[in-house]
Amino acid sequence: MVHQEQLDLSTRADGDLHDLTQDIQSIVQKSNIQTGIAHIFNIGSTGAIGAIEFEPGLRQDLPETLRKLIPPSLEYKHEQTWHDGNGHSHLHATLLGPSLTVPVTQGKLELGTWQQIFHLECDVRPRQRRILVTIYGE
Amino acid sequence: MVHQEQLDLSTRADGDLHDLTQDIQSIVQKSNIQTGIAHIFNIGSTGAIGAIEFEPGLRQDLPETLRKLIPPSLEYKHEQTWHDGNGHSHLHATLLGPSLTVPVTQGKLELGTWQQIFHLECDVRPRQRRILVTIYGE
Amino acid sequence: MVHQEQLDLSTRADGDLHDLTQDIQSIVQKSNIQTGIAHIFNIGSTGAIGAIEFEPGLRQDLPETLRKLIPPSLEYKHEQTWHDGNGHSHLHATLLGPSLTVPVTQGKLELGTWQQIFHLECDVRPRQRRILVTIYGE
Repeated sequence: MVHQEQLDLSTRADGDLHDLTQDIQSIVQKSNIQTGIAHIFNIGSTGAIGAIEFEPGLRQDLPETLRKLIPPSLEYKHEQTWHDGNGHSHLHATLLGPSLTVPVTQGKLELGTWQQIFHLECDVRPRQRRILVTIYGE
Repeated sequence: MVHQEQLDLSTRADGDLHDLTQDIQSIVQKSNIQTGIAHIFNIGSTGAIGAIEFEPGLRQDLPETLRKLIPPSLEYKHEQTWHDGNGHSHLHATLLGPSLTVPVTQGKLELGTWQQIFHLECDVRPRQRRILVTIYGE
Repeated sequence: MVHQEQLDLSTRADGDLHDLTQDIQSIVQKSNIQTGIAHIFNIGSTGAIGAIEFEPGLRQDLPETLRKLIPPSLEYKHEQTWHDGNGHSHLHATLLGPSLTVPVTQGKLELGTWQQIFHLECDVRPRQRRILVTIYGE
């Protein structure tokens, strides 16, 4: 059994984090799948999906850590193609990855109490994001 | 066809790596699934699952690399919420991610000879970990 | 329904990036699966699979970024086991991960226009790579 649904998300810019857990939980319940997997995928090359404890401190720590590791201020070769100032955005998104897969047990996402599903905007301007959720199992 | 099973794991602390390959291989064989996918997921926000050549050198190199990239000694904003000294643990775990998906072929995990499935404890104290393994296919 | 197929790839060395998108798209079409998931996995511990905008700038930026974060010039403990000079290769591959999962919608990979599936060679010498593609859905 497969159930697929799209989530739409408006983001501000680089560093904007959203908690998608409740939205994905609702899609799992609608799917009627009891045991299986939920796959969450950001369509586009400058957004990331992952797991984190969604609290105010880490919401700042994660984007700050990425900016330290891959600084926006460096000159990236991507800039020579597009001149849109988002070379670091692509690299942040590739490093974290565009997707997460979470088990479904007894009709619910099996996450830790302090473990949430996030979307991270990595691009330098507001974006309309399409997130594709696929639930499969039985 | 879906088969789901939990692995329990006792970890020491930050940097403790376990090789889960044989345990997952056994679950694949029990599932009787010949062709498909095995999904391995750490429940909780301070543990990671991934793939590595599981040998003594890399068992030290991986945690050391994470500590260089995201130092435990820095002050993270997460600390202001919880005061439990594990801001870096959350960031290490989010960077590596909580899950891995491996193909199943002819009833076995299809891994390279030097490619093993690991659990990495990122938290600063011993933990009892629940790892959920979902095998699906036919 | 599950469809599994192997892709073979010849790589040059550390930093060699290939765009696999068209090859995976063809496998999806052959599978006749309309709605589901495509899972792409590098067999072996020194190659990575991920998503990126596949253009000449980022093709240089990604390997350069990895070399800055985890320098080939450092002495890794892996070297004491194998003396093959590829400690950093293992760490690059583990950080990015060996696999990617992409949704399939109406019989096609659902990717952004500028979002491609890459294979990154992380090893220090040319390799013959086996990439296992598993499509499942209905």
